[in-house]
Order: sequence, then structure tokens, then C-alpha cells
Amino acid sequence: MYLEKINSPEDVKKLNIDEMEVLAEEIREAIIKRDATHGGHFGPNLGMVEATIALHYVFDSPKDKFVFDVSHQTYPHKMLTGRRQAFTDEARYDDVTGYSNQHESEHDHFILGHTSTSISLALGLAKARDVKGEKGNVVAIIGDGSLSGGEALEGLDFAGELKTNFIIIVNDNDMSIAENHGGLYKNLKLLRETDGKAEINLFKAMGLDYIFVKDGNNIKELIEAFKKVKDINHPIVVHIHTQKGKGYKLAEENKEPWHYVMPFNIEDGKPLNVDDSEDYTDVTKEYLIKKMKEDKTVVTITAGTPGSFGFSKKERDELGSQFVDVGIAEQTAVAISSAMASKGAKPVFTVVSSFIQRAYDQLSQDLCINNNPATIVVSYGGAIGMTDVTHLGWFDIAMMGNIPNLVYLAPTTKEEYLAMLEWSIEQQEHPVAIRLPGGKMVSSGKKVTKDFSKLNAYEVSQKGKKVAIIGLGTFYQLGEKVAKLYEEKTGVKATVINPMYITGVDEKLLEELKKDHSMVVTLEDGILDGGFGEKIARFYGNSDMKVLNYGLKKEFLDRYDIGKLLRKNRLKVDLIVEDLLKF
Amino acid sequence: MYLEKINSPEDVKKLNIDEMEVLAEEIREAIIKRDATHGGHFGPNLGMVEATIALHYVFDSPKDKFVFDVSHQTYPHKMLTGRRQAFTDEARYDDVTGYSNQHESEHDHFILGHTSTSISLALGLAKARDVKGEKGNVVAIIGDGSLSGGEALEGLDFAGELKTNFIIIVNDNDMSIAENHGGLYKNLKLLRETDGKAEINLFKAMGLDYIFVKDGNNIKELIEAFKKVKDINHPIVVHIHTQKGKGYKLAEENKEPWHYVMPFNIEDGKPLNVDDSEDYTDVTKEYLIKKMKEDKTVVTITAGTPGSFGFSKKERDELGSQFVDVGIAEQTAVAISSAMASKGAKPVFTVVSSFIQRAYDQLSQDLCINNNPATIVVSYGGAIGMTDVTHLGWFDIAMMGNIPNLVYLAPTTKEEYLAMLEWSIEQQEHPVAIRLPGGKMVSSGKKVTKDFSKLNAYEVSQKGKKVAIIGLGTFYQLGEKVAKLYEEKTGVKATVINPMYITGVDEKLLEELKKDHSMVVTLEDGILDGGFGEKIARFYGNSDMKVLNYGLKKEFLDRYDIGKLLRKNRLKVDLIVEDLLKF
Repeated sequence: MYLEKINSPEDVKKLNIDEMEVLAEEIREAIIKRDATHGGHFGPNLGMVEATIALHYVFDSPKDKFVFDVSHQTYPHKMLTGRRQAFTDEARYDDVTGYSNQHESEHDHFILGHTSTSISLALGLAKARDVKGEKGNVVAIIGDGSLSGGEALEGLDFAGELKTNFIIIVNDNDMSIAENHGGLYKNLKLLRETDGKAEINLFKAMGLDYIFVKDGNNIKELIEAFKKVKDINHPIVVHIHTQKGKGYKLAEENKEPWHYVMPFNIEDGKPLNVDDSEDYTDVTKEYLIKKMKEDKTVVTITAGTPGSFGFSKKERDELGSQFVDVGIAEQTAVAISSAMASKGAKPVFTVVSSFIQRAYDQLSQDLCINNNPATIVVSYGGAIGMTDVTHLGWFDIAMMGNIPNLVYLAPTTKEEYLAMLEWSIEQQEHPVAIRLPGGKMVSSGKKVTKDFSKLNAYEVSQKGKKVAIIGLGTFYQLGEKVAKLYEEKTGVKATVINPMYITGVDEKLLEELKKDHSMVVTLEDGILDGGFGEKIARFYGNSDMKVLNYGLKKEFLDRYDIGKLLRKNRLKVDLIVEDLLKF
Repeated sequence: MYLEKINSPEDVKKLNIDEMEVLAEEIREAIIKRDATHGGHFGPNLGMVEATIALHYVFDSPKDKFVFDVSHQTYPHKMLTGRRQAFTDEARYDDVTGYSNQHESEHDHFILGHTSTSISLALGLAKARDVKGEKGNVVAIIGDGSLSGGEALEGLDFAGELKTNFIIIVNDNDMSIAENHGGLYKNLKLLRETDGKAEINLFKAMGLDYIFVKDGNNIKELIEAFKKVKDINHPIVVHIHTQKGKGYKLAEENKEPWHYVMPFNIEDGKPLNVDDSEDYTDVTKEYLIKKMKEDKTVVTITAGTPGSFGFSKKERDELGSQFVDVGIAEQTAVAISSAMASKGAKPVFTVVSSFIQRAYDQLSQDLCINNNPATIVVSYGGAIGMTDVTHLGWFDIAMMGNIPNLVYLAPTTKEEYLAMLEWSIEQQEHPVAIRLPGGKMVSSGKKVTKDFSKLNAYEVSQKGKKVAIIGLGTFYQLGEKVAKLYEEKTGVKATVINPMYITGVDEKLLEELKKDHSMVVTLEDGILDGGFGEKIARFYGNSDMKVLNYGLKKEFLDRYDIGKLLRKNRLKVDLIVEDLLKF
């Protein structure tokens, strides 16, 4: 066992090639075992084992600085930088995050989990080094899939005018999460096929020097290449061809589902916990496939994450030109959606809450100023979703909810959602986004006949008095429960309201509430600052109505416990009723 | 005169080359005259006259669709598509906007004024055409300067996998607004120098077909090239080399100041109205130049708009590596700032309010999750700035003010601003943004000694009772005036508060106000939705305090009248006092 002796990169430097190859196998085994037990990024880590060993053998971290794009391939790096026990000792699997994190180790420089940021961040490290008169290599490590993102391409371009040391390792495994999309991948293929000798070369066209490593899983070749570029006095791309999923046959053969895994059986690759319950992304996919068959102008768009709504390779292929994966390129996805909608086609951009953040300006300028009737379906919004700090779903309401012209809807049941989706796709008046609720899908069984074109018309589902509870999206059912407990405690039947519209206030209804209500409670699954509830508080600011806003505190949290988080923010039936009883 | 006979592109098609050349001169003359009188984009329009004529001669707009990037070059297009009188008749100069606008003409397809969007928008038009089974060419026209923006590069990449008609005209005048920055410009230079024959070719590397036009101001050459690509069945780049500012000697010789002009004397190029009064961007520049001389780790960063803070070419050259222009690449600018700050350098990213929108995710992920002490100075925030719908400065508070960890400051005087800037650059705790106030710079002459590291500590500048007025940034002085008039009318001295912190609430102070105040007024120079005032309304939601929030309605407006806008939103001393007297 070599791995157990590696406590810092210094220990890697003591090994010879043969020993490093054994180390690689040990690392690989640890990754497979950990991910099979714990879940995590799989294929990208397995592909980068040798390159990471070679990087630490040749360079001197932390004086030399590595920035791993999106962090999907950082496990080997973590193991070589004092964090191996988080991968070898099951009891300590949660000692480290799944992402790069400077608070864990001096060998990490950023918390990062969104794609396409590494080159630009590394450029800042290089610039800081230069103005401070320091030395050392700065190395960005970026996968081919991340290259299509705007920030990565901006960085690649700006790197081309740097006149000091700067190294970009392009880890080319010929895959994004799914297959790659975009013209640049033809060039990467050409470069792989010509051992990097093709004249047409994206990196050279961006003003960068370039070398190619044919076998990016060969430690010796990698060490030679890295030695060649170490301490170089200008920017250079080292294009290495690696195998995603290397060392685990199923992952080598079927890369997409093995990009990220939930716990599985190592022998046959079968997942340990199968959740067959239907969720909002399932019904989205089912609805869209049917809709696209009926109407050739309906087009589903994704930005590199077709799996987040469950579209399999087979289904995508069957849908042909009606399924568009623009690659990691959310800005372009929004722009295309807007333009398609402007000419009568019916685009539906399906996107994760945390990633729609990457297209704020496109939502504002390309879409909403032009008021084109595109549809955006936002998944994993809210607290009940991804808990990594880089993937929080709490910000979309504040980010999107204040852009003019956008109609941002919050359904509370499957039936409401599908009615909204159908309306949105067919209407020609507004850009519409729909936020999938968090948690278990609720099905009312009731047909929804509401005309959503009457904007900001909230629905009163229970008429009561004194207290009105406005439960937005995910938390509508929480609102119902609060009303129930409040009635049990006080005998007073509260009014319960399903607002449905995140982006507007039903002024008529709110005005009417003044007659026989003295308290309005708002519940939302997002940060309070800039959110939905504050609009209600503003509306009632000059009146006698009391307003209590419940939602999440504006903060970044990493790997939070959902129960504790909700309790801390008093988003619990008992706590809310306790607050109400105080008045 | 040919121009007076051009009522639609059909009329262009009737002309021969010689006639088109005369037409070009007439168009040029009209642009020079209009801009000299009215102001507007100058160099880019003069450079694109011939190409626009050739486009309309060869293609059949609106069946064939043109998307002009950023719209800085759309005047010739407007003149050829039924809008010539807005350029030839002084009384009608304001009939059209300075930007592409589908509500003006069926030959425009989008309102757009941010850079780097044309290719992605055009991709959506092509996709709509294809799924609807329609015909026609889709043509994106993009300047070399816009190519460095993330959305443009994403679009260029995704275009490379399209299998149907798609044409990208790269209008290469070897300039952004200022000089270009980034490695790709070396490739454009190489392509220009080799008549497009160099093997290394960015566009081919993106999977696109490619042709080069040596003289992009030669109508005959252009027509030949455009005819060659018309109805092509795959994506192609037509790289045309044009002369920015062509036809006006001063603009040809000194391109940067002639990109956009205010009214000037045609004979000698001298501006007609010189405003010598010092403003916030002037003092920013003056301060930063001094600071950078004293401290080599202070670096000023811009994303392609050095002129927006007045840094001249000469000053930039003198600052050397301490002035970084990343080109049109706001995402990269934020990432670089964050990374530099993480290693003890002192970056100051200077950016226009409307353009910081292009880096929301980088503010959140690259900067604020990492909590790095970079400084961002935001100019033209608020209503008193650019009035074009694509350049509104009303959204930055709602966009940035709700991102955790960010300290967004709103100074009210020159002295406060410089104290904040100095503090921000030297502190090591927080990412900080500072919003320059709108309107005339106010100088108090007073030394500011406040310790800004005590976050969210508002300042009470006048202690009164009953009514407290919180005037944020630009509108602090409005708050003072309201208090004065209110005292005149009622004899009651109101409390006046300068909050300074956009991103947080001074809970202690607000709590204290409850003792002897019954009304709090907030004033802010941004939309109310998601803004500063709503946080105050939320704070007081469960109390007896009345809150009146003043700010702008959430809406997109084009070329608004500032006086009317403020009155409509009751942001006037008399109207606010009128409201107060009602209580």
C-alpha cells in the first residue's frame, strides 16, 4: 500500500513510475468503493487519477497552484493532499466535501462547483502572482465538456494575451456529463486523431501555445509533458486524452450514467436504493415527449444536463431536432429560446435552479426586454434539493422574480404544474418560468381550469378570517397545515392562499383581506431578501395589517441538514403557529 | 440623391454598383450630420455602410433575417429599411431608437443593446425556421470586439454543429470600443494578413466554414461574397475587414473616442457642449491612478469599457500591468478580481450597472461563496443615467443586493465614496461593491471617519421624531429635502438616515426608531421589487410602524424622461410630503 503513506504531495515525489502506477490503482479502488457506498462523482475522477499523480509529482503545490474546473475530478487530488482518509475510511467519508475547498486544504484555492470557471480564476491567481512579484506555476485543469461555457471561452481568449507562466490542462475524455455538443468538439477530435498535429487548432487560434499527450492515463507520458511546461514563461495548453470511468468497466462502456452515481453494488453496478416514485422531472419529461410528438414546433432545450430531467440518450435520439442540447452554455440556451419563441416556435428550456443563475443578463436582455413567450422549467429550486454550497436552489426567486415581464409561476401540485406548462407553451404573451416544487410530488387528482393569462390572480383555497396564510409553491401544503393547527389551537379558521405567481402581487385580493384580517403570513422556499414575501410586506407597509415573512436567511451554507435548516428559519408548523399565537 | 428614393430594401436592389457607391456616400453624410447634431454611435456605423448595402442587395429581408450584434452599427440598416427620415430630417431624429427594435420595423427582430448576443439569438431564429419547415437565410452580424464575450463564443461553438443555413458576418475593424484584448485577436490579425488563408483559424476550429473579404468597404467584393454564401446549407463565417470611422478623417485616425459621440462640430470635431464639472467617475480615476502608483498590488480592471471611467489610452499605457482590460468579458473580469483578492492583490473592477448583470453567477459563485475581498465600482446605476431600455441602471440593487456575503455600499457624497473605496481596497474580509450615485456629484467637504467594517451601521444625520426618512445613495439628498419641507408644513422635525449599506438592515437602529417614530420612509434609485426598501418593510412587518417605500416600478422603459419618471413614481419632494401629510 502506497496510498496510506501519502500525507502530502511531497510523498508522491518519492515514488518511482512503477510505484505511482500501483498508487493509481489504489486510488481508483478507493474511489470505486467510496462512491459505491456514499455516492459521488465517478467517471471524471477515475479518468484523472494518473494525471493528478503526475501533476503532484512534477509541480510543487501549494506554491504551484492548481484550479480544478467544476471539481468533478478532485478526489485523487484530495487523496494526495492530506485528505486520503476521507476516501479510505468509511467513517470519515463526510470529512471532505465533493468539491474543491480552500478551507479544507492549502492545496485548494477556491470553493467551486459550477463549470467553466477554472481558467478565469486561475488567470486571477497568475495576475496576483505577477503584481506581487512572486513565482510559481498556475495550472488550470478543465474538462472538454466545460470548454463550451462562456466563462471558459472568455478565459481561454484572455489567457492568450498573458505574457507570463500559465498552464491549462485540457482533460479531454470526449464527454461532457452527456455527449459533447458544439463545433469545437470536432476540433478536439481532429487533434486527438492527429496526435495534436492538425493545423486547425482552437487553442492556437486563441493565441496559446499547445502540446498534446496521447495517453492521458500514462503516468510517464504525463510526467514528461508536465516537466516540459513547468516554469514556462508564457501560456500553454496541455491537451491530454484521458479515459472517463477508467478502471470500472461499466463506466468505461456507458459513460453518461456513470458521471455521478448514487450508492451501487460494485459487482453488477446496480443501484442500492431505487426510488420508483414519480417526481416533477418525470412528469415533465413524459408531458414534453407527448407534446413534441403532437406538435413539431415544440422543442426541449437543455444546457449540457439532459439527465436532470431524465431524458436518456435513446429518448434524445428519437426526438431528433426537437431535443436541443447546446452543451454547457446556459446563456445561449436562453437566447435560442427567446428567438425561437419570437417566431412562433415553442421552446421549453429545462434547467436546474443553480445553473439558470448563469444567464441573468440573457433572461433580462435577450428574453424579457423582448417579451418573447418562451418557457423555462426550473428544477431543484428551494431548500429541498442539492445541499452543496455551490448548488443551492434558494436564490432563483430573488434572481428571476424581479425581472420585468417575466411571469414566474410556482405550482403546488402535479395538476397545477401541467396546466401551467400547457398554458405557457401555447400562450403568446409572456416569457414564463415555472419553478418545480421541492419534496415529494403532490397530486390533487383535480382538474385545473384556471386561466393563467389573468396574471397575478392568487387562489383562495380556504376562506377564513383574522389570519391569511400565503404559501408559495413548495410551502403551500405547509400553509395548509399551519391553518389546521391554528384552528385546532384557537378555533379560528384562517384563510389559505395559493399565490401561484411569484412575480406579482394580487392587489385586489390583498386589499380585500384588510376587511377581516389583521395578519398575513407568507411562506416561501427561498431567501427572504429580494423574495416573494417582501413584496407582500411592502404592499401592506402603510396599513395596519401585520405581515410575517417566512423563508430562508440570505446565506451560503454547505451540506446543510434540511430539518435543522427549516427549524432554524422557523419554517415548521409548530413554530409558525407559536409565532401566530403571540399576537 | 439615391437615399431619398430608398423606402425599403427592394429599392436597393434596383441600383447598380456605381449607384450604390453614391448611396454609401449619402448614408455616410447623413450619419455624420445626425451624430454631429444629436450624438450617437459613430465609428461602427460609418464602417458598416457598404456591407449593409450589400447585405440588402443580396439577401431578401425580412424573409432573410439579419441580427446586428449590440446594434452599434444599425443606422445604415435603419436607413435602408424605411427609416431614412430619422437620419435625414433633423425634426425626426428621435423617431427611431439607437438600437435594433422589432417594434420599429419588420426588418429588425430583437431589441438589443448588450454585446455578444447576436449569434445565439440568430441560432434561435434558424432553429425556429427549421422546426417550422420554413426557408430563408439567417445572418448574424457581429463586430470583432464583441467576439470575446462568453455568449458570442458559446454561440460560435454551438453554430458549429448546426446542419442548416446559418451565416455569421464577422465585421472586423480591428477595434472593440477601445483596442481589442485577448488571444483570438492575434488570429484575426493573422487572417487579415494572409487574406484569410492562414491554417490556424478560430472559426474553422469552432467547426465552421469560412471565407474572407479583404476590403469590407468595397461593395462589389461584398456582393460577390454574400452571393456565394446566400442559401448555403450549413453554417459559414464571412470575415470582412472594414474600416471603423470610414469617411470622417478624425474618426479613422483616432477610433476610440469616435466610437460614440456627443454633438460635435463637423469641421474640427470639437464637442459642442463641454461639461467640465467633476463627476464620480473622474474622482474614481484620479484616486485609482494615485493609489496604483503608491501600491503595485492595486489593479484596475475593465471589461472592454475603459472609457466609462475616463481612462485614456495614454493613461492605460502608463499604468501598464496595473490596468487590465479583459475585453468584453465581464464573467472573466469578476473571476479574475476574486482570485486576485484571494491572494492579497487589490483588484478594483470598474463596471457600468447594466453590464455587471452579465456576471451574476460569477458574483455569486466565483466571488461571494469564496468571500474574497475584491472591489467592484458600479457606475450609471439608477434612473439618472442611460435611458435606453437595454442600458437601464435600475436593476443592480435587486440583482446584487440579495447575494450573500456581498457588501453593497451606496455613498451619498464624494467624501463618503472615497472613504468607502479606500476602506474596501485595504480590507480583507468582504467582497465589496460600491454604487456611484446618479446626478451631480455632491461634495460635503467633510472628512469621513466612519469604520465601514462595522457592517450595516446606518448613520443618523438628523435626529427627529415621528417620521424617519431613509434615503439611499442618490436619493439621500432627496430625503433631506423631504424632511425640510415636512418640517415647514408640520413643525415636526423628521429623522433623516443615510443607510450606506444596500445589502443589510441596521436592526438595532430600526428597533430604536419604534420608540418615537410611527412612520419610516425609504427612498431608492432602483426598482422597488427585490430592492432595499422591501427589506425595511419586512423588518417592520409585525410591528405598528408604517413603512412607505419609494423607488421605481419594475418595468422596462425606453428613452424615458427622467422628470416624468420620477414624478410617476412619486419620487418628488412635494409628492412624498403630500403622502406623508395623509397620515
